[in-house]
Parts: sequence; C-alpha cells; structure tokens
Amino acid sequence: MGGWKRIALTVKAGQTAGPRGVSPLVARIVALLRSRGVEIVLDAAAASHVGETSALRVDEIVADADLLIVLGGDGSVLAAVRAIGSRRVPILGVNLGHLGFLTDVSLDRAEAALEAVLRGESTIVERTRFDVTHMRDGLELLRELVLNDAVITKGSALARLIELEAQVDGRLISRYRSDGLIVATPTGSTAYNLSAGGPIIDPGVPAAILSPICPHTLTLRPLVLPDDREILVRLCSPEDAALTLDGQVGATLRTGDEVRVVKAREPARFVTTPPHDHFETLRTKLGWGSR
Amino acid sequence: MGGWKRIALTVKAGQTAGPRGVSPLVARIVALLRSRGVEIVLDAAAASHVGETSALRVDEIVADADLLIVLGGDGSVLAAVRAIGSRRVPILGVNLGHLGFLTDVSLDRAEAALEAVLRGESTIVERTRFDVTHMRDGLELLRELVLNDAVITKGSALARLIELEAQVDGRLISRYRSDGLIVATPTGSTAYNLSAGGPIIDPGVPAAILSPICPHTLTLRPLVLPDDREILVRLCSPEDAALTLDGQVGATLRTGDEVRVVKAREPARFVTTPPHDHFETLRTKLGWGSR
Amino acid sequence: MGGWKRIALTVKAGQTAGPRGVSPLVARIVALLRSRGVEIVLDAAAASHVGETSALRVDEIVADADLLIVLGGDGSVLAAVRAIGSRRVPILGVNLGHLGFLTDVSLDRAEAALEAVLRGESTIVERTRFDVTHMRDGLELLRELVLNDAVITKGSALARLIELEAQVDGRLISRYRSDGLIVATPTGSTAYNLSAGGPIIDPGVPAAILSPICPHTLTLRPLVLPDDREILVRLCSPEDAALTLDGQVGATLRTGDEVRVVKAREPARFVTTPPHDHFETLRTKLGWGSR
Amino acid sequence: MGGWKRIALTVKAGQTAGPRGVSPLVARIVALLRSRGVEIVLDAAAASHVGETSALRVDEIVADADLLIVLGGDGSVLAAVRAIGSRRVPILGVNLGHLGFLTDVSLDRAEAALEAVLRGESTIVERTRFDVTHMRDGLELLRELVLNDAVITKGSALARLIELEAQVDGRLISRYRSDGLIVATPTGSTAYNLSAGGPIIDPGVPAAILSPICPHTLTLRPLVLPDDREILVRLCSPEDAALTLDGQVGATLRTGDEVRVVKAREPARFVTTPPHDHFETLRTKLGWGSR
Repeated sequence: MGGWKRIALTVKAGQTAGPRGVSPLVARIVALLRSRGVEIVLDAAAASHVGETSALRVDEIVADADLLIVLGGDGSVLAAVRAIGSRRVPILGVNLGHLGFLTDVSLDRAEAALEAVLRGESTIVERTRFDVTHMRDGLELLRELVLNDAVITKGSALARLIELEAQVDGRLISRYRSDGLIVATPTGSTAYNLSAGGPIIDPGVPAAILSPICPHTLTLRPLVLPDDREILVRLCSPEDAALTLDGQVGATLRTGDEVRVVKAREPARFVTTPPHDHFETLRTKLGWGSR
Repeated sequence: MGGWKRIALTVKAGQTAGPRGVSPLVARIVALLRSRGVEIVLDAAAASHVGETSALRVDEIVADADLLIVLGGDGSVLAAVRAIGSRRVPILGVNLGHLGFLTDVSLDRAEAALEAVLRGESTIVERTRFDVTHMRDGLELLRELVLNDAVITKGSALARLIELEAQVDGRLISRYRSDGLIVATPTGSTAYNLSAGGPIIDPGVPAAILSPICPHTLTLRPLVLPDDREILVRLCSPEDAALTLDGQVGATLRTGDEVRVVKAREPARFVTTPPHDHFETLRTKLGWGSR
Repeated sequence: MGGWKRIALTVKAGQTAGPRGVSPLVARIVALLRSRGVEIVLDAAAASHVGETSALRVDEIVADADLLIVLGGDGSVLAAVRAIGSRRVPILGVNLGHLGFLTDVSLDRAEAALEAVLRGESTIVERTRFDVTHMRDGLELLRELVLNDAVITKGSALARLIELEAQVDGRLISRYRSDGLIVATPTGSTAYNLSAGGPIIDPGVPAAILSPICPHTLTLRPLVLPDDREILVRLCSPEDAALTLDGQVGATLRTGDEVRVVKAREPARFVTTPPHDHFETLRTKLGWGSR
Repeated sequence: MGGWKRIALTVKAGQTAGPRGVSPLVARIVALLRSRGVEIVLDAAAASHVGETSALRVDEIVADADLLIVLGGDGSVLAAVRAIGSRRVPILGVNLGHLGFLTDVSLDRAEAALEAVLRGESTIVERTRFDVTHMRDGLELLRELVLNDAVITKGSALARLIELEAQVDGRLISRYRSDGLIVATPTGSTAYNLSAGGPIIDPGVPAAILSPICPHTLTLRPLVLPDDREILVRLCSPEDAALTLDGQVGATLRTGDEVRVVKAREPARFVTTPPHDHFETLRTKLGWGSR
C-alpha cells in the first residue's frame, strides 16, 4: 500500500493536552505528514492538540481520506469504524494506553509505523463486520454495522433473565433463558464474548459466534456458525431488553422485536505494518506463557 | 416436629382460580387442617381461592403462626422468607410447577406431605441467610436478609463493565472488572451463581461464594469464603450500578457505595418430610445421570 | 442420490444375536435390499446376524460399494470412516442405542430411512476430516484421517501436566502447559472438545479448534482457526505423552515429536434423509429447552 | 511460636550445588541456626550442599524436630508433608523458583524470615488434610494423608472416559462419566482443581471439593461438601483407572474398587511470618489486577 494523498487524524476525546500529554505526538505526526506533502485533515479533538481549529467529526474527516489514523484505544477504533460506515477507508490505530486488539501500534512506535506506512511497507487487513438490524412489526428501527458484537441483554438489573429465540436461516437453534446473548464477529471474540466464556476465533475464520450470557440451561454452550447465514434473535420475554452494538450504541427491545444479523458487504480495513502478529497480541494481552 | 396450632397459608399471586386451577388443592388443605383442629390463617391470595376474604399480607399471617405453607415456586418462597424476617417460623414449600430447589414437595404429594407434617414426621432444616447492608457515606440505606444472594451489576446495558473492590474482614481480595459480582449463600449457589459459573455448595458448608459475572480478567474465578467473615464490596466505577437482593429487591449504587454482607443471626427454616434428598433434587434439576 | 447397486453393511461388534437383539433388523434390511435388486456385502459381524458367513472387514466390504450402512453408535461410524479412508463411499448411520451425533437414524426409523434412500430421497452431506501425521526426527511414524479429533495428552496418570508448543503455518500460537490439547474438526466439536470446555462449531464453518485440557494457565481458552492452515503441535515435556486419533488409534509421543494437522483432501460423506436437523440433534442431546 | 531446639532442613533434589546454586544459602542457614545454638539435622540432599554427609531421608530428620525447613517448590512441600505424616512438625517453605501456594517465602527473604521465626515472630497455620484409603473387596490397599487432592483418572490415554459413582455418607451424589474426578482440600483448590474448572476455596472453609475432569454431562459442576463427611468414590467402568495422591503417589484402580476420603485427624502445619497474605498470593499467582 502507498500513495497516500489525504490522511485523516482523530484523537480520543478527553486526552490531556499540552507537552506532557499526547499533544507533542499529534504535532509530530502532523508535521511528518505535511513534510511529505500529504494533506492532513483533523477532527475537532485532534486539532485542539496542535493549536488548530476544526469543527469536523470523524465521519466528516474520512469523507475523502485515504487513511484514518486513530490515536486512542479499542473503543476509539470501534467508534471510528462506525463513523467510516461503508466507505473503504483503512484505519491505523495507535494505542494511547494498554495494548489493544484493534490498536497494536504502541505510542513509541507510532512514528516509525507511520513512516513505514508512507514508504508503502504496510498491508491492508480486512475484518468482517456484521450488518445488524433491529426490527419491530416488520419495520427497521435501527441498522448499524458492528465490528465486534451485537449484544442483547435484560433491560434492568432486577429482571432475572430474559427469554430469547435464535434462528439461523429460518431454522430454530434454541430458546435461550439467560442474562442475554452475544452475537460476535471473530474480531469481537476477544471482547465481551471472551468474558462470557466464548472461544477465541481467528479473524480468518468466516464465522459468527452466539454466546449466551449466564445461561440458565448449563448445556447452552457458545455456538460458532458460518458467517454467510442470517441469524435472527427474537425477544420472547414479557419484559423489555436492551440491544447494544459494539458496546456503544443502544436500543430498547420489546417483546416480539427481532434482531437480524448478517455479514456486512464492506469489511473494516486496517493498515498493519510488520511485525504484526495476532498471536503475539493474544499472548501479551492474555498472559499466555510463551516460555 | 409437631403440635401445630396455627398454620399460615399463602399462594403465589396470579394463579388461575377455579376447579381447573390450584383452588381445589387450597380448599382441601384448608379443610384438612381445620378437621384436625388447626387454626389456619390465609393471606389475600390464598383466601380468594376458597371464597373467603382476607386482606392480610404474608408478613401479617406469619405473626403468630407455627408454620407457613407456601404454594408457588422458588420465587414465592424467597419472598415468604423475606416476609418472615427474623421470626423463627418454618416454611413448607409446595411447587405449583417445576421442581424447585426450595419447594421440593410436588403438587400431587402436597396433602400426603402435610399429613406427615401433622403426624410429626418432619424435621426442620436450617438454611443460612446473609444480612446485607447498603451503605453510603457511613449511612445504612437498605438492610435486608437474603436466602440466595446479593448481586451487584452494572446499572445499564450500555455500561460495558463496572469496577468493584472486594474485601474480607478488611483485607483486600481483589478488584473486579466485570459485569458484576454475586455474593451467594450455599442455598443460592444453585441459583444465579450457577449460571455465572460458580460451584454448587452443599447447604451444610458454612460458606459464602463470591462469583464474578463475566469478568474481564479471566483468572478471576469463583471464591468460596468462610461465612463468619465480613465481606465488603465497594463500587469504584464512576457510573451507577445496581444491587439486587434475592432477585426481588433492588437499589441503585453510586461510586463509593458499599455493600456489607455478614451471616444473619437467624437462618431460614424449612419443614421437610422424608424422603427429602438434596442430591436427588440436584440430579433431577440438572439432569445428572444417575445411571 | 440414488441408483445404488452395491451396498455394504456392518454391525457393531458384540451386539446380542438372536430374535431379541439386532438380528431381525439386519435380516429385514438384507431382505429389503435384495428384493430391490441391490447387491449387499456383509462384514463378519453383520453376516453372523443373518446366518451367513463372511470373513470380510469393513475396509474390505466398502471396496466397491456405493454406500455403507453402519448399525452401531458414533464409535462404529468413526471406525467405519477410518476404514473407508480416501474412498468416496457415503455412510448411513443407524444408532442402536442413544441418539448419536453421527447416527441420527434411530432403530425404529431404520427401514423407513433406507426406503427413502433407495427412492433417491436423500442427500450427501460432507464433513471435513483432518489428515494427521505423527513425526519424529523428520520421519512419519503414523498418518491417519480423523473425523473428530487428534488428542495429545499426558502419558500417565502420575504425570501432572505436559508442555506443548502449538504453531499455525509456522507461527507460534503459544506454549500449553496442560493435561493435553485437542485439535478438533467441527464434527468433533461436540465430542471430547465439548467436555473440555470448547465451543460447538457448526459443520459448515471451515475451522479447526484447539482446546487445551485442564490448562495450567487459566487464560488459555479454546481457539478456533481456519481449516486451511497447517497446525503443528510439538511435545516439549521431558516425559512421554500420548496421541489419540478419534479416540480409537493411539501412539506414544516422545520429547520433540510433532503432530501435524491439515485438512484432508477427502471429506467423510454421510447420507441423510429428511428431516435431518443438526440443531434438533443438539437440542435433544444437550437438553436445550426449546420451550 | 519460638523455643526451637532442633530444626530439620531438606533441599529439593537436583538443585545445582556450588557457589552459583543454592549451596551458599544452605550454608548461611546452617551457620545461622548453629550460631543460635539450634541443633540442625540435614537430609542427604541438604548435607551435600554444605560438604557434610547425611544418609537421612526427610521422614527421618523430622523424627524429633521442632521445625522442618523446606527449600524447594510446592512439590517439595507436598512430599515433606507426606513424610511428616501424623507428626505435628510444622514446615517453613522457601521457594527456590516461582512463588508457590505452599512456599510463600522467597529466596531473598529466606534468612530474614528465619530470623523472625527464631525471634518467635511467627504463627502456626493449620491446613486440613484428607485421609485417603484405596479399598478393594473390603481390604485397604493403600492409605495416605493428602494435603492437596486425591485424583481418580482414566488409566490410559485411549480410554475415552471412565464411570464413577460418588457417595457422601452413604447417599448417592451422582454417577460421573468423565476423564476423572478430583477430591480436593481447600489447600488443593488452587492446584489441579483450578485447572479443571473448580472454585478457589479459602483454607478457612471446612470443605471438600468434588470436581469432575472433562465431564461428559455438562451440568456436572464442581460440588463443595462439608469436610466432616465420608466421601466414597467407586469405579464402575470395566476398565482400569488410576488413583493419584497429591500428584506424587499412584495406584491402579480396578472395577469395583473404592476410594474413601475423610478428614485427617492431624492437619499439616506451616510456620508463617508476617506479612503472609493468602489473597496477595492469589493476586500475584493468578494475575488478578489489584488496580
């Protein structure tokens, strides 16, 4: 990959400005890119770190960009991916704190990684997204692309459990009496799914995972399905439930509401520079002994 | 046990009245007890099934009773135990539906069991309860006895996880970043705790269980502690959380709030008739193969 | 499917002969097939149930067969699949006992299912197999096709744990200190993998599962990989370990030995008749409540 | 505690001798004790590190000792506890490598800890042991005290699963079809039990844990029982199985053999010096975030 003409930059909101914060890095990145003749577009947060002014949101700065640099955490990347929507703009994620699954470039490697990207020493990795629709009485109430997961949970702490029915391509899988149900992509398998007892799925597996949250029926184990099927989850409980997309967008579900999950046409795109190694991230994040 | 003079009777609200519902059984129980010279006190729901009138709540009918008969499910028994409070009235639970952990007398055995109780062929089984206090800035906001569990969970579906700190007798156990934390009695070990991955604790073990719900740190496993310790859980998250007691009573927790759990002075009391077998209930409820 | 000319039949060894056992069914199947002009070839066990004589093994009767009928359990089907090897002969599995994942035709449906197959009302379902090689110092010591799994475990009960290193396409996944490691196909996901805490993988997902058995490192969770990769597991422990294929073939591993797992060129083939429903089998076998 | 007259010292076999190994520490400990007028008794391994000669085994050096110092790992302590048998000699465990659950004094704290012990600044902590008997046809074949666990497993890698029946005080708990069954003390709860999915039990809980290893029935969850009951496990499988005690002593079980587990009369005793904190060990060993 190479030939970048216009690069967008966003910084996680709430980062400390000034010389002890992330501002010097933002300034160096901006200077580096401009020195190479790359046009750079800043969102409001990024601009504030370099004394410039911008009123642009992430979805606006990516409009004609070739690349989006995200300084933040996995949450910032999830938000950026959603802002990108169906555009084919790839993301370079730089983590400002702990190693992330979506931001494997550390702060101190940020400039070296960016130099490598500008030299064309990078590849685009595609990550499957799901296209999630919340339907009521045949109407679409919400439709979003998710990179990690669509999660259906009981609506309030007092509600003990909810009852859901899951189907794949119109065939019943099972009723689920549980705190909820996670439909995760392979990318999302290391997020909430992992806490709920689900497996780690390599991003190269074309799969969707259904993981119940605290199921009442102990044999209801995580189920890995092909990602070219239509998964439909219907709320059977008399009580309300909640739908949460990538942990960031929410909706209220009523009895009979359906959540439809299919593979999105456009995957998310990430720019990676060597030596990216998904297993190394797993070993580091999960403390697997490599010895 | 024997010499019952005054027996209270409550029926789960919402049960179908009339000849096809639970009414005939209620009538037979009332007749049986009266024929033996036992005074019977009905709550409003029970009275409605036999064409009598009562405005009494469960906590009122148990005031001078020697025994409380509960026709319902495990939830009805949990509510009845809370209504009994620190009184020493034992409960005979008859399940109207599926076998319950707290209601091991089935509908068709109800009268035979009651006859056995009247003949003195029964024993009182004690089940440890926890005394749970919700504290804010040193003030008690709520104090309840629980038979199953005190559960602290994130306050809303969008909140990804909460951060709690648990101490035992003033010593730090750990921080918990999770969907929540269950503090369960042995009796409660087969309730929510089991769905969250906790172990089954025999009622004879003087223990409390701390089971994290979907913990972010995968090594945070259920922890079984002596029940004569003080367990203190403090909410460290900036967001609100929820406290739920026996799945029926709720409160909102704010940052810094503490939930204190100690063993209650008075256990709950249950009347059991042979052949009560806790392991048989486990085998039946959980489908353990006895073959 | 249809046009069957030559059908092979094998019966699980050790089945009771005579009128109260499986013999009458074997006789009816043989008679049915002959009445339709289908040539039938019996192995030794099947022949003994109908008073005929055969010295043939399963791998011999399938040599020119269009179909192999297996009367037995999942273990019988696993053995039959291994006997078939790379031949393209499909299997019709009839379970003599409990519902199996590989034998979803029950005894009482056996003849109806066979009639349907003869009428052409059946389809061939392909199930991925793995090609497993045990290597020492660059030499192949054993090479087998497996339908369920290749399992590496400690060699003796006294050995507390073994240390393995797993690679995928030459890249390190992790070291595993555990009782062992299961490499399972989606078909095998409901076998040993499930007991070890692994997920259920739909047969339609092109995946391999690595599930550690009782891992010392609690974060070493089951890992689902694309099935077109080469998985290599090397024994690092100073002690011997055991390799078990489909629970039926075993070998001893020494320090430095490698087990190489790749997708087999030829899948196993199964004849299914409507209404085959994989999810129904799951619901029934695992007791998932469909209500 | 104080007034130590005679202290025994054992060193894990196979430790490198000489100035770069553990020898200097052994020499310093011996010199320290002798300078305080304490008689010190060395086993063969310890003696070899200080150029002395001893042919004594651990069970011999503890005969009249007031204290046994163990330089090694958790395995060395388990062996020492078994050698002590029913004597009331306490152990001070110094770990030569990683932090252990039974050896919480690190190498660099060894002398300071010993000084504290000699000054009487220590306490004796008791840890429950189980008295395990292997019985065949009413005869005792083996009887040992265990500090961690009695583990029954399938006898060979090819054996898929074994069938066990567990009883408590003569009442059936369940049949277990699994790779095996662990009966663990609270001390043993952080050993094999944890890898098998069992809970962590505080040493202060008078309990025994039954944890199935890879159970075929997914609902067969770990079960915590009072430790004053008799647990009896009978092998029902037609195949042999293995009994392993504290991971170090083994026996072969045949069909019908029984393993009887009761609380031992004499607990194991450990000398601890402040600041011993069981939860800190848990946080460190399991990587629980205290932040």
